[in-house]
Amino acid sequence: MQIAVLGTGEVGRRLASRFVEVGHEVVLGSRTSDNAAAHAWAGENNAAHGTFADAAVFGEVIVNATGGLVTKAVLEAAGAENLAGKVVVDVSNALDFSKGFPPDAVTFDGLGVAETIQRDFPQTRVVKTLNTMNNQVMARPDLVPGDHVVFLSGEDADAKAVTAGLLRDMGWRDPQIMDLGGISTSRATEQFVILWVHMNGGIGDGSVMWNIAVQRAS
Amino acid sequence: MQIAVLGTGEVGRRLASRFVEVGHEVVLGSRTSDNAAAHAWAGENNAAHGTFADAAVFGEVIVNATGGLVTKAVLEAAGAENLAGKVVVDVSNALDFSKGFPPDAVTFDGLGVAETIQRDFPQTRVVKTLNTMNNQVMARPDLVPGDHVVFLSGEDADAKAVTAGLLRDMGWRDPQIMDLGGISTSRATEQFVILWVHMNGGIGDGSVMWNIAVQRAS
Repeated sequence: MQIAVLGTGEVGRRLASRFVEVGHEVVLGSRTSDNAAAHAWAGENNAAHGTFADAAVFGEVIVNATGGLVTKAVLEAAGAENLAGKVVVDVSNALDFSKGFPPDAVTFDGLGVAETIQRDFPQTRVVKTLNTMNNQVMARPDLVPGDHVVFLSGEDADAKAVTAGLLRDMGWRDPQIMDLGGISTSRATEQFVILWVHMNGGIGDGSVMWNIAVQRAS
Repeated sequence: MQIAVLGTGEVGRRLASRFVEVGHEVVLGSRTSDNAAAHAWAGENNAAHGTFADAAVFGEVIVNATGGLVTKAVLEAAGAENLAGKVVVDVSNALDFSKGFPPDAVTFDGLGVAETIQRDFPQTRVVKTLNTMNNQVMARPDLVPGDHVVFLSGEDADAKAVTAGLLRDMGWRDPQIMDLGGISTSRATEQFVILWVHMNGGIGDGSVMWNIAVQRAS
Protein backbone atom coordinates (compact mmCIF):
# COMPACT_ATOMS: atom_id res chain seq x y z
CA MET A 1 0.00 0.00 0.00
CA GLN A 2 1.16 3.57 -0.67
CA ILE A 3 1.38 5.42 2.62
CA ALA A 4 2.10 9.08 3.30
CA VAL A 5 3.49 9.74 6.75
CA LEU A 6 3.24 13.41 7.64
CA GLY A 7 5.73 14.53 10.27
CA THR A 8 9.43 13.81 10.64
CA GLY A 9 9.56 13.65 14.42
CA GLU A 10 10.22 10.47 16.34
CA VAL A 11 6.66 9.18 15.88
CA GLY A 12 6.59 9.79 12.14
CA ARG A 13 9.99 8.28 11.48
CA ARG A 14 9.27 5.27 13.70
CA LEU A 15 6.00 4.46 11.95
CA ALA A 16 7.36 5.21 8.49
CA SER A 17 10.30 2.85 9.06
CA ARG A 18 8.02 0.13 10.31
CA PHE A 19 5.68 0.49 7.33
CA VAL A 20 8.66 0.13 4.98
CA GLU A 21 9.88 -2.85 6.97
CA VAL A 22 6.60 -4.70 6.57
CA GLY A 23 6.45 -4.06 2.83
CA HIS A 24 4.62 -0.79 2.24
CA GLU A 25 5.75 2.07 0.02
CA VAL A 26 6.19 5.24 2.08
CA VAL A 27 6.74 8.90 1.37
CA LEU A 28 7.70 10.85 4.49
CA GLY A 29 6.25 14.35 4.28
CA SER A 30 7.60 17.53 5.81
CA ARG A 31 7.14 21.25 5.41
CA THR A 32 9.95 21.66 2.90
CA SER A 33 11.38 19.30 0.32
CA ASP A 34 14.91 19.68 1.71
CA ASN A 35 14.13 18.65 5.30
CA ALA A 36 17.35 17.17 6.70
CA ALA A 37 15.69 14.61 8.99
CA ALA A 38 13.47 13.39 6.17
CA HIS A 39 16.40 13.20 3.78
CA ALA A 40 18.45 11.16 6.24
CA TRP A 41 15.49 8.89 6.97
CA ALA A 42 14.86 8.28 3.28
CA GLY A 43 18.49 7.34 2.73
CA GLU A 44 18.56 4.94 5.66
CA ASN A 45 15.29 3.31 4.68
CA ASN A 46 15.65 3.28 0.90
CA ALA A 47 12.42 5.25 0.74
CA ALA A 48 11.19 8.64 -0.42
CA HIS A 49 10.47 12.00 1.14
CA GLY A 50 8.92 15.24 -0.02
CA THR A 51 6.65 18.07 0.96
CA PHE A 52 3.39 17.42 2.80
CA ALA A 53 1.65 17.87 -0.58
CA ASP A 54 4.05 15.46 -2.34
CA ALA A 55 3.36 12.86 0.31
CA ALA A 56 -0.40 13.41 0.23
CA VAL A 57 -0.54 13.03 -3.55
CA PHE A 58 1.34 9.74 -3.24
CA GLY A 59 -0.51 8.23 -0.30
CA GLU A 60 -3.54 6.01 -0.51
CA VAL A 61 -3.50 6.31 3.27
CA ILE A 62 -2.34 9.47 5.06
CA VAL A 63 -0.83 9.05 8.54
CA ASN A 64 -0.86 12.24 10.59
CA ALA A 65 2.15 12.05 12.89
CA THR A 66 2.49 15.80 13.37
CA GLY A 67 1.85 17.48 16.70
CA GLY A 68 -1.84 18.15 17.10
CA LEU A 69 -1.21 21.85 17.65
CA VAL A 70 0.04 22.21 14.05
CA THR A 71 -2.01 19.49 12.37
CA LYS A 72 -4.52 21.84 10.76
CA ALA A 73 -1.77 23.91 9.15
CA VAL A 74 -0.01 20.74 8.00
CA LEU A 75 -3.12 19.32 6.36
CA GLU A 76 -3.84 22.65 4.70
CA ALA A 77 -0.30 22.52 3.30
CA ALA A 78 -0.91 18.94 2.18
CA GLY A 79 -3.95 20.19 0.32
CA ALA A 80 -7.57 19.24 0.87
CA GLU A 81 -7.77 18.13 -2.76
CA ASN A 82 -4.92 15.67 -2.18
CA LEU A 83 -6.60 14.24 0.90
CA ALA A 84 -10.13 13.93 -0.45
CA GLY A 85 -11.60 10.45 -0.23
CA LYS A 86 -8.56 9.07 1.55
CA VAL A 87 -8.16 7.39 4.93
CA VAL A 88 -6.43 9.73 7.38
CA VAL A 89 -4.92 7.75 10.25
CA ASP A 90 -4.44 10.30 13.03
CA VAL A 91 -1.96 9.24 15.70
CA SER A 92 -1.40 12.73 17.09
CA ASN A 93 -1.88 14.40 20.44
CA ALA A 94 -2.21 18.14 21.01
CA LEU A 95 0.08 18.66 23.97
CA ASP A 96 0.78 22.17 25.21
CA PHE A 97 3.93 22.34 27.35
CA SER A 98 3.88 26.14 27.58
CA LYS A 99 2.89 26.01 31.26
CA GLY A 100 5.48 23.33 32.03
CA PHE A 101 4.93 19.77 33.14
CA PRO A 102 2.52 18.10 32.93
CA PRO A 103 1.30 19.39 29.57
CA ASP A 104 -2.30 20.23 28.77
CA ALA A 105 -4.18 18.13 26.22
CA VAL A 106 -5.59 20.96 24.15
CA THR A 107 -9.04 20.97 22.61
CA PHE A 108 -10.31 23.22 19.84
CA ASP A 109 -13.77 24.65 20.53
CA GLY A 110 -14.18 21.58 22.73
CA LEU A 111 -13.13 19.12 20.02
CA GLY A 112 -10.07 16.91 19.81
CA VAL A 113 -7.57 16.83 16.95
CA ALA A 114 -9.14 13.96 15.04
CA GLU A 115 -12.57 15.52 15.35
CA THR A 116 -11.31 18.80 13.94
CA ILE A 117 -9.65 17.00 11.02
CA GLN A 118 -12.93 15.27 10.21
CA ARG A 119 -14.79 18.57 10.52
CA ASP A 120 -12.31 20.70 8.57
CA PHE A 121 -11.57 18.10 5.86
CA PRO A 122 -14.98 16.48 5.49
CA GLN A 123 -14.00 14.49 2.40
CA THR A 124 -11.41 12.54 4.38
CA ARG A 125 -12.21 9.44 6.40
CA VAL A 126 -10.44 9.94 9.71
CA VAL A 127 -9.49 7.11 12.04
CA LYS A 128 -7.85 7.86 15.36
CA THR A 129 -5.51 5.22 16.70
CA LEU A 130 -2.17 4.53 18.42
CA ASN A 131 -2.06 7.86 20.31
CA THR A 132 -2.30 6.21 23.75
CA MET A 133 1.20 4.72 23.98
CA ASN A 134 4.79 5.57 23.22
CA ASN A 135 6.00 5.36 19.64
CA GLN A 136 8.13 2.26 20.11
CA VAL A 137 5.08 0.28 21.22
CA MET A 138 2.95 1.73 18.41
CA ALA A 139 5.26 0.24 15.81
CA ARG A 140 6.30 -2.92 17.67
CA PRO A 141 3.47 -4.08 19.94
CA ASP A 142 5.43 -7.28 20.58
CA LEU A 143 7.74 -5.21 22.81
CA VAL A 144 5.03 -5.53 25.48
CA PRO A 145 3.61 -8.93 26.46
CA GLY A 146 -0.06 -9.79 26.64
CA ASP A 147 -3.25 -8.35 25.24
CA HIS A 148 -2.49 -4.68 25.77
CA VAL A 149 -4.85 -2.48 23.85
CA VAL A 150 -5.00 -0.09 20.91
CA PHE A 151 -8.13 1.96 20.22
CA LEU A 152 -9.92 2.83 16.99
CA SER A 153 -12.29 5.79 16.63
CA GLY A 154 -13.94 6.90 13.42
CA GLU A 155 -17.11 7.21 11.40
CA ASP A 156 -16.20 5.02 8.40
CA ALA A 157 -16.18 1.24 8.81
CA ASP A 158 -14.07 0.68 5.69
CA ALA A 159 -11.50 3.19 6.87
CA LYS A 160 -11.34 1.41 10.22
CA ALA A 161 -10.82 -1.91 8.43
CA VAL A 162 -7.93 -0.43 6.42
CA THR A 163 -6.43 0.98 9.61
CA ALA A 164 -6.82 -2.31 11.46
CA GLY A 165 -5.01 -3.96 8.56
CA LEU A 166 -2.06 -1.60 8.99
CA LEU A 167 -2.06 -2.33 12.72
CA ARG A 168 -1.98 -6.07 12.00
CA ASP A 169 0.91 -5.54 9.60
CA MET A 170 2.88 -4.04 12.52
CA GLY A 171 2.04 -6.99 14.74
CA TRP A 172 -1.15 -5.98 16.52
CA ARG A 173 -3.53 -8.90 17.06
CA ASP A 174 -7.30 -8.72 16.80
CA PRO A 175 -7.97 -9.20 20.55
CA GLN A 176 -5.86 -6.10 21.18
CA ILE A 177 -7.81 -3.82 18.83
CA MET A 178 -10.75 -2.10 20.53
CA ASP A 179 -13.21 -0.13 18.41
CA LEU A 180 -14.56 2.64 20.64
CA GLY A 181 -17.13 3.97 18.14
CA GLY A 182 -17.42 7.26 16.28
CA ILE A 183 -14.79 9.94 15.90
CA SER A 184 -16.01 11.80 19.01
CA THR A 185 -14.66 8.96 21.14
CA SER A 186 -11.15 9.92 20.03
CA ARG A 187 -11.31 13.01 22.22
CA ALA A 188 -11.34 10.78 25.30
CA THR A 189 -8.22 9.00 24.09
CA GLU A 190 -6.49 12.34 23.56
CA GLN A 191 -7.44 13.43 27.07
CA PHE A 192 -6.16 10.11 28.45
CA VAL A 193 -2.64 11.05 27.44
CA ILE A 194 -2.21 13.21 30.55
CA LEU A 195 -2.93 10.20 32.74
CA TRP A 196 -0.50 8.27 30.54
CA VAL A 197 2.17 10.87 31.32
CA HIS A 198 1.61 10.49 35.07
CA MET A 199 1.55 6.69 34.83
CA ASN A 200 4.73 6.74 32.78
CA GLY A 201 6.38 8.71 35.56
CA GLY A 202 5.29 6.11 38.08
CA ILE A 203 6.35 3.15 35.96
CA GLY A 204 9.90 4.18 35.31
CA ASP A 205 12.25 6.59 33.72
CA GLY A 206 10.56 6.60 30.33
CA SER A 207 12.64 3.73 29.02
CA VAL A 208 10.22 1.06 30.23
CA MET A 209 8.01 -0.18 27.40
CA TRP A 210 4.44 -0.50 28.59
CA ASN A 211 0.83 -0.08 27.64
CA ILE A 212 -2.56 -0.37 29.23
CA ALA A 213 -4.58 -3.56 29.02
CA VAL A 214 -8.12 -4.54 29.91
CA GLN A 215 -8.52 -7.15 32.62
CA ARG A 216 -11.99 -8.63 32.75
CA ALA A 217 -13.77 -11.20 34.82
CA SER A 218 -13.87 -14.56 33.09
CA MET B 1 -11.23 2.56 62.12
CA GLN B 2 -14.12 5.03 62.24
CA ILE B 3 -15.14 5.88 58.69
CA ALA B 4 -17.66 8.42 57.43
CA VAL B 5 -19.01 7.63 53.99
CA LEU B 6 -20.69 10.66 52.45
CA GLY B 7 -23.28 9.82 49.83
CA THR B 8 -26.01 7.19 49.76
CA GLY B 9 -25.83 6.34 46.07
CA GLU B 10 -24.60 3.01 44.75
CA VAL B 11 -20.94 3.91 45.25
CA GLY B 12 -21.39 5.10 48.82
CA ARG B 13 -23.51 2.17 49.92
CA ARG B 14 -21.19 -0.33 48.21
CA LEU B 15 -18.08 1.04 49.91
CA ALA B 16 -19.80 1.52 53.26
CA SER B 17 -21.01 -2.09 53.26
CA ARG B 18 -17.56 -3.36 52.37
CA PHE B 19 -15.93 -1.31 55.13
CA VAL B 20 -18.38 -2.78 57.66
CA GLU B 21 -17.74 -6.25 56.25
CA VAL B 22 -13.98 -5.97 56.82
CA GLY B 23 -14.40 -4.71 60.37
CA HIS B 24 -14.61 -0.93 60.31
CA GLU B 25 -17.21 1.24 62.05
CA VAL B 26 -19.15 3.26 59.52
CA VAL B 27 -21.59 6.14 59.60
CA LEU B 28 -23.27 6.71 56.25
CA GLY B 29 -23.92 10.42 55.76
CA SER B 30 -26.67 12.07 53.78
CA ARG B 31 -28.28 15.47 53.52
CA THR B 32 -31.00 14.75 56.05
CA SER B 33 -31.08 12.49 59.08
CA ASP B 34 -34.20 10.69 57.81
CA ASN B 35 -32.82 9.64 54.42
CA ALA B 36 -34.68 6.45 53.48
CA ALA B 37 -31.82 4.83 51.58
CA ALA B 38 -29.43 5.48 54.45
CA HIS B 39 -31.92 4.18 56.99
CA ALA B 40 -32.45 0.98 55.01
CA TRP B 41 -28.70 0.53 54.52
CA ALA B 42 -28.03 1.01 58.25
CA GLY B 43 -30.64 -1.60 59.13
CA GLU B 44 -29.28 -4.13 56.66
CA ASN B 45 -25.68 -3.61 57.74
CA ASN B 46 -26.17 -3.18 61.48
CA ALA B 47 -24.49 0.22 61.14
CA ALA B 48 -25.31 3.87 61.64
CA HIS B 49 -26.39 6.78 59.48
CA GLY B 50 -26.85 10.48 59.98
CA THR B 51 -26.39 13.86 58.41
CA PHE B 52 -23.22 14.74 56.57
CA ALA B 53 -22.14 16.60 59.71
CA ASP B 54 -22.99 13.65 61.99
CA ALA B 55 -20.88 11.39 59.80
CA ALA B 56 -18.00 13.87 59.58
CA VAL B 57 -17.87 14.28 63.36
CA PHE B 58 -17.69 10.48 63.72
CA GLY B 59 -15.19 9.70 61.00
CA GLU B 60 -11.44 9.52 61.42
CA VAL B 61 -11.45 9.10 57.67
CA ILE B 62 -14.01 10.78 55.41
CA VAL B 63 -14.90 9.04 52.14
CA ASN B 64 -16.46 11.35 49.58
CA ALA B 65 -18.80 9.20 47.49
CA THR B 66 -21.04 12.05 46.38
CA GLY B 67 -21.23 13.22 42.79
CA GLY B 68 -18.45 15.67 42.09
CA LEU B 69 -20.92 18.32 40.95
CA VAL B 70 -22.35 18.56 44.48
CA THR B 71 -19.25 17.69 46.50
CA LYS B 72 -18.46 21.24 47.57
CA ALA B 73 -21.96 21.77 48.94
CA VAL B 74 -21.83 18.41 50.69
CA LEU B 75 -18.52 19.17 52.39
CA GLU B 76 -19.78 22.59 53.44
CA ALA B 77 -22.77 20.85 55.00
CA ALA B 78 -20.42 18.39 56.70
CA GLY B 79 -18.60 21.37 58.16
CA ALA B 80 -15.00 22.40 57.59
CA GLU B 81 -14.42 22.22 61.35
CA ASN B 82 -15.50 18.55 61.35
CA LEU B 83 -13.16 17.73 58.47
CA ALA B 84 -10.08 19.58 59.69
CA GLY B 85 -6.97 17.43 59.98
CA LYS B 86 -8.72 14.36 58.62
CA VAL B 87 -8.00 12.19 55.62
CA VAL B 88 -10.58 12.78 52.89
CA VAL B 89 -10.66 9.85 50.47
CA ASP B 90 -12.28 11.23 47.34
CA VAL B 91 -13.68 8.58 45.00
CA SER B 92 -15.94 10.94 43.06
CA ASN B 93 -16.24 12.01 39.45
CA ALA B 94 -17.94 15.19 38.23
CA LEU B 95 -19.99 13.89 35.34
CA ASP B 96 -22.39 16.22 33.56
CA PHE B 97 -25.03 14.32 31.57
CA SER B 98 -26.99 17.46 30.70
CA LYS B 99 -25.92 17.24 27.05
CA GLY B 100 -26.63 13.52 26.88
CA PHE B 101 -24.23 10.65 26.37
CA PRO B 102 -21.29 10.61 26.76
CA PRO B 103 -21.13 12.90 29.76
CA ASP B 104 -18.57 15.65 30.22
CA ALA B 105 -16.00 15.34 33.01
CA VAL B 106 -16.41 18.79 34.50
CA THR B 107 -13.56 20.90 35.83
CA PHE B 108 -13.84 23.91 38.11
CA ASP B 109 -11.63 26.81 37.02
CA GLY B 110 -9.55 24.12 35.37
CA LEU B 111 -9.27 21.98 38.50
CA GLY B 112 -10.69 18.56 39.23
CA VAL B 113 -12.91 17.65 42.17
CA ALA B 114 -10.15 16.42 44.48
CA GLU B 115 -8.06 19.49 43.74
CA THR B 116 -10.94 21.77 44.62
CA ILE B 117 -11.53 19.90 47.89
CA GLN B 118 -7.88 20.34 48.83
CA ARG B 119 -8.05 24.03 47.86
CA ASP B 120 -11.38 24.81 49.55
CA PHE B 121 -10.76 22.72 52.68
CA PRO B 122 -7.03 23.25 53.16
CA GLN B 123 -6.97 21.60 56.60
CA THR B 124 -8.02 18.27 55.11
CA ARG B 125 -5.59 15.77 53.63
CA VAL B 126 -7.17 14.69 50.36
CA VAL B 127 -6.37 11.43 48.59
CA LYS B 128 -7.99 10.62 45.28
CA THR B 129 -8.49 6.95 44.52
CA LEU B 130 -10.88 4.32 43.12
CA ASN B 131 -12.63 6.70 40.70
CA THR B 132 -11.39 4.87 37.59
CA MET B 133 -13.54 1.74 37.80
CA ASN B 134 -17.07 0.65 38.58
CA ASN B 135 -18.15 0.44 42.20
CA GLN B 136 -18.29 -3.34 42.37
CA VAL B 137 -14.61 -3.55 41.47
CA MET B 138 -13.73 -0.72 43.89
CA ALA B 139 -15.01 -2.75 46.82
CA ARG B 140 -14.12 -6.24 45.57
CA PRO B 141 -11.00 -6.09 43.40
CA ASP B 142 -10.93 -9.89 43.40
CA LEU B 143 -13.87 -9.78 40.98
CA VAL B 144 -11.27 -9.07 38.27
CA PRO B 145 -8.21 -11.30 37.82
CA GLY B 146 -4.64 -10.10 37.62
CA ASP B 147 -2.78 -6.97 38.58
CA HIS B 148 -5.36 -4.42 37.47
CA VAL B 149 -4.62 -1.01 38.86
CA VAL B 150 -5.90 1.57 41.33
CA PHE B 151 -4.37 5.04 41.50
CA LEU B 152 -3.48 7.27 44.44
CA SER B 153 -3.06 11.04 44.16
CA GLY B 154 -2.43 13.40 47.05
CA GLU B 155 -0.01 15.68 48.84
CA ASP B 156 0.22 13.90 52.20
CA ALA B 157 2.24 10.69 52.46
CA ASP B 158 0.60 9.63 55.73
CA ALA B 159 -2.86 10.15 54.26
CA LYS B 160 -1.88 8.01 51.29
CA ALA B 161 -0.65 5.29 53.65
CA VAL B 162 -3.97 5.33 55.52
CA THR B 163 -5.83 5.15 52.20
CA ALA B 164 -3.66 2.31 50.92
CA GLY B 165 -4.46 0.48 54.15
CA LEU B 166 -8.18 0.80 53.47
CA LEU B 167 -7.61 -0.45 49.93
CA ARG B 168 -5.74 -3.47 51.29
CA ASP B 169 -8.59 -4.14 53.69
CA MET B 170 -10.89 -4.46 50.67
CA GLY B 171 -8.51 -6.84 48.93
CA TRP B 172 -6.25 -4.62 46.86
CA ARG B 173 -2.68 -5.87 46.73
CA ASP B 174 0.41 -3.66 46.75
CA PRO B 175 1.43 -4.36 43.11
CA GLN B 176 -1.97 -3.02 42.07
CA ILE B 177 -1.65 0.32 43.88
CA MET B 178 0.02 3.02 41.76
CA ASP B 179 0.94 6.31 43.39
CA LEU B 180 0.73 8.96 40.66
CA GLY B 181 2.07 11.84 42.76
CA GLY B 182 0.47 15.04 43.99
CA ILE B 183 -3.19 15.94 44.05
CA SER B 184 -3.00 17.59 40.62
CA THR B 185 -2.53 14.15 39.07
CA SER B 186 -6.05 13.28 40.17
CA ARG B 187 -7.45 15.56 37.48
CA ALA B 188 -6.09 13.20 34.82
CA THR B 189 -7.84 10.27 36.48
CA GLU B 190 -11.10 12.21 36.51
CA GLN B 191 -10.71 13.02 32.81
CA PHE B 192 -9.97 9.35 32.11
CA VAL B 193 -13.48 8.43 33.11
CA ILE B 194 -14.83 9.45 29.70
CA LEU B 195 -12.51 6.97 28.02
CA TRP B 196 -13.66 4.46 30.63
CA VAL B 197 -17.27 5.05 29.56
CA HIS B 198 -16.40 4.39 25.91
CA MET B 199 -14.35 1.31 26.80
CA ASN B 200 -17.18 0.01 28.96
CA GLY B 201 -19.47 0.31 25.96
CA GLY B 202 -17.04 -1.72 23.88
CA ILE B 203 -16.49 -4.36 26.54
CA GLY B 204 -20.08 -5.30 27.19
CA ASP B 205 -23.41 -4.28 28.45
CA GLY B 206 -22.14 -2.79 31.70
CA SER B 207 -22.45 -6.04 33.59
CA VAL B 208 -18.92 -7.17 32.74
CA MET B 209 -16.53 -6.54 35.62
CA TRP B 210 -13.27 -5.11 34.31
CA ASN B 211 -10.49 -2.68 35.00
CA ILE B 212 -7.40 -1.39 33.32
CA ALA B 213 -4.01 -2.93 33.97
CA VAL B 214 -0.47 -2.01 33.08
CA GLN B 215 1.40 -4.44 30.87
CA ARG B 216 5.12 -3.84 30.82
CA ALA B 217 8.12 -5.37 29.11
CA SER B 218 9.90 -7.80 31.38
